[in-house]
Amino acid sequence: MTDSLENWRRTHYSDKVKKELKGEDIILMGWVHEIRDLGGIIFVLLRDRDGIMQITAPSKKISPKLFEDIKKLKKEAVIAVKGIVQESPKAPNGVEIIPEEIKFLNGSKLPLPLDTTGNVHAEIDTRLDSRYLDLRKQNVSAIFKIKSRMFHSIRKFLEEKDYREINTPKLVASATEGGTELFPITYFEKEAFLGQSPQLYKQMMMASGFDKVFEIAPIFRAEEHDTLRHLNEAISIDLETAFTDHEDAMEILEELIQRAIQDVKEHCGDALKTLEVDLKVPEIPFPRVDYDDVVDIVTSKGVLMNYGEDLSRAAEKAMGEVMDGYYFITGWPTAIKPFYVMPGSEDPEKSCAFDLMYKDLEISSGAMRIHNYDLLVQQMKDKGLNPDSFETYLQAFRYGMPPHSGWGVGAERFTMSITGVKNIRETVLFPRDRRRLTP
Amino acid sequence: MTDSLENWRRTHYSDKVKKELKGEDIILMGWVHEIRDLGGIIFVLLRDRDGIMQITAPSKKISPKLFEDIKKLKKEAVIAVKGIVQESPKAPNGVEIIPEEIKFLNGSKLPLPLDTTGNVHAEIDTRLDSRYLDLRKQNVSAIFKIKSRMFHSIRKFLEEKDYREINTPKLVASATEGGTELFPITYFEKEAFLGQSPQLYKQMMMASGFDKVFEIAPIFRAEEHDTLRHLNEAISIDLETAFTDHEDAMEILEELIQRAIQDVKEHCGDALKTLEVDLKVPEIPFPRVDYDDVVDIVTSKGVLMNYGEDLSRAAEKAMGEVMDGYYFITGWPTAIKPFYVMPGSEDPEKSCAFDLMYKDLEISSGAMRIHNYDLLVQQMKDKGLNPDSFETYLQAFRYGMPPHSGWGVGAERFTMSITGVKNIRETVLFPRDRRRLTP
Repeated sequence: MTDSLENWRRTHYSDKVKKELKGEDIILMGWVHEIRDLGGIIFVLLRDRDGIMQITAPSKKISPKLFEDIKKLKKEAVIAVKGIVQESPKAPNGVEIIPEEIKFLNGSKLPLPLDTTGNVHAEIDTRLDSRYLDLRKQNVSAIFKIKSRMFHSIRKFLEEKDYREINTPKLVASATEGGTELFPITYFEKEAFLGQSPQLYKQMMMASGFDKVFEIAPIFRAEEHDTLRHLNEAISIDLETAFTDHEDAMEILEELIQRAIQDVKEHCGDALKTLEVDLKVPEIPFPRVDYDDVVDIVTSKGVLMNYGEDLSRAAEKAMGEVMDGYYFITGWPTAIKPFYVMPGSEDPEKSCAFDLMYKDLEISSGAMRIHNYDLLVQQMKDKGLNPDSFETYLQAFRYGMPPHSGWGVGAERFTMSITGVKNIRETVLFPRDRRRLTP
Repeated sequence: MTDSLENWRRTHYSDKVKKELKGEDIILMGWVHEIRDLGGIIFVLLRDRDGIMQITAPSKKISPKLFEDIKKLKKEAVIAVKGIVQESPKAPNGVEIIPEEIKFLNGSKLPLPLDTTGNVHAEIDTRLDSRYLDLRKQNVSAIFKIKSRMFHSIRKFLEEKDYREINTPKLVASATEGGTELFPITYFEKEAFLGQSPQLYKQMMMASGFDKVFEIAPIFRAEEHDTLRHLNEAISIDLETAFTDHEDAMEILEELIQRAIQDVKEHCGDALKTLEVDLKVPEIPFPRVDYDDVVDIVTSKGVLMNYGEDLSRAAEKAMGEVMDGYYFITGWPTAIKPFYVMPGSEDPEKSCAFDLMYKDLEISSGAMRIHNYDLLVQQMKDKGLNPDSFETYLQAFRYGMPPHSGWGVGAERFTMSITGVKNIRETVLFPRDRRRLTP
């Protein structure tokens, strides 16, 4: 039998219980992290979201009924403890709780499918199968404390900059960029697709006069890749600004990256310590490396790369050996960038597109976009796309489309760059990849 | 031919140009809202995100070339104007701009598919077909100013309350609530569905020890409904809290609603004025109306409703006649609520579920959830569901699931309650309904 909560409510998280509370009655709620029964005294480590607290139950000081109840506790049971805070130099936090009353809120089957103390190594697939247990580990939850704070700081920064959050549809009638990496869905009697990017929608919003918009939302890509850097469902941080060019777009992006990292450093000290990350706030402006120089650098590292090719994985790694932090690659050939990218005003073969890299990892792509209708249609045709399938998008370019620029940041890749984790799946609560659809 | 931005950047939005700037050189960018050519003098109304400014071009005071360029402007063209601020008691804002230089950034075809001044009535379908133009109207963009601010205030409130934002997957292997209203997708060689609610995921997160979580994200429902209150893609504001019951869930919900409205009232005065909304901050606690009394009230209004039935549209309307603002319906029969809803401790026929209503509109559903594994399996069976299809969800209930409660708010319906708009499509930039997949 389990107990009900009734009128009990948690008074403190474990990390908030300090010596100053000595002698006070408090209520903690959480999981039995460990239990040690020494006969006349039982130690229970209670774990909650923010820490671990020692409950000390000496048979001589507490009622026999309570002592028996505590004796019966098993690992990972859910309990609530009402007790008195007492100083204890030997206890992990310098304080311990002498229990007065306990509620047994729920049990846990044993053995657990996954060790929650972090002492036993488990493969990522085993961990993801029991993600709810995996997330109980401090070094796993720390990643999500950081990710959550990162989103918070990005929103704060963009709101200060007078950007407005928008929501664009994820159910779309046609391909965003004419790509093949789309998940088809059955939308009543029609065929539809899942949005692989809000690109066309945020551009249409530029014609609406909203001027400065951002969106943080899921994107879906039916990529066959099964790597440490790809997901089939990810969160994209998208921004678009009217009356600006790619230089403005890079400036706001590097400032946003800097501010988010600064803010995470300030507010997630414990989580960073758990992950053993010594986070450095990058200086701005970030270095700009022209695509021509990238070809030279990559080639000089013995990796084959011809002018006009995108960066292969080997080429990215070669760049990562030379460039240590965040940097932009600029001056991309127009030929290998999407149709909506503005060709350079001096040399139309070189585009106004940029990528933001962190070492060997692409974090973001952006560009000044084409706002001229005729040029846009021409670029579509040059890339082998049929303008007719983009009619609702193209319409917005006929009736007053301002110059504009923007970018999209992969939230999970940015989280990787902050936390140092090597597998992108670590940065998602319930990742979706080529083989995984559950839990 | 159009001009390039070059080094021009907007210095002010229109509503920031006031008498204090008299004599200063500024740059405005936006659209030609109206143009009046009186021969010797031309008035151009320039519209940007935040207002409208009069550009006054007297042939005697400006260069003939500039005068000719202005003369050629057409409605909804995109321009940048460099000029001097001058007091003008007759101009709409008490100031006008005497132009010194102008850039023609992009043209606009005429006639427009939609009038942007708001003088010509258009049906919602016509408006949505040219949404980028529709959004240029102040009474349309006002709705999204408010919606964006609403999200901002909700996040601010939840962060103050120490809630953490999470992202759960939208690609799922099976039905959330065993429902039939799912969009099927092809996930490589498997069948999958689009998430109709993060319900099962936020509950699994309760077993992870994250304790206080929220998510603001799209949900997808393949409902056949074609009403003024349903969408097939919407934004859901979801919250879940461990170690709490339904009373706690209602308390945080009413506080959140109150705070969001207060904040919108404070920060969106202009938008509310445009919409002619006299927004009242609701007092808390909201009234609680027991389901039994709802049956009586509805019946007394001459609408047929048997005990144990959900509210029909007629029943909702009857309630809306009696209840003016926000109120909770509590004490729902367990039989008509989803399997995960906790039966009442005194009378298991009455559940711990609640709905938040605004007049005749359901804004939110919530409940204390079942945390006991055996009871949960029993409820699934009672509702004709197969527990085997919920295995990954059920697993989380075997290894230490705390008591928990939560709710989901329909962001668009909440926006309707604030803005007073009657068609839910008005609250979405690019709505998706039974018939509409574009733009």
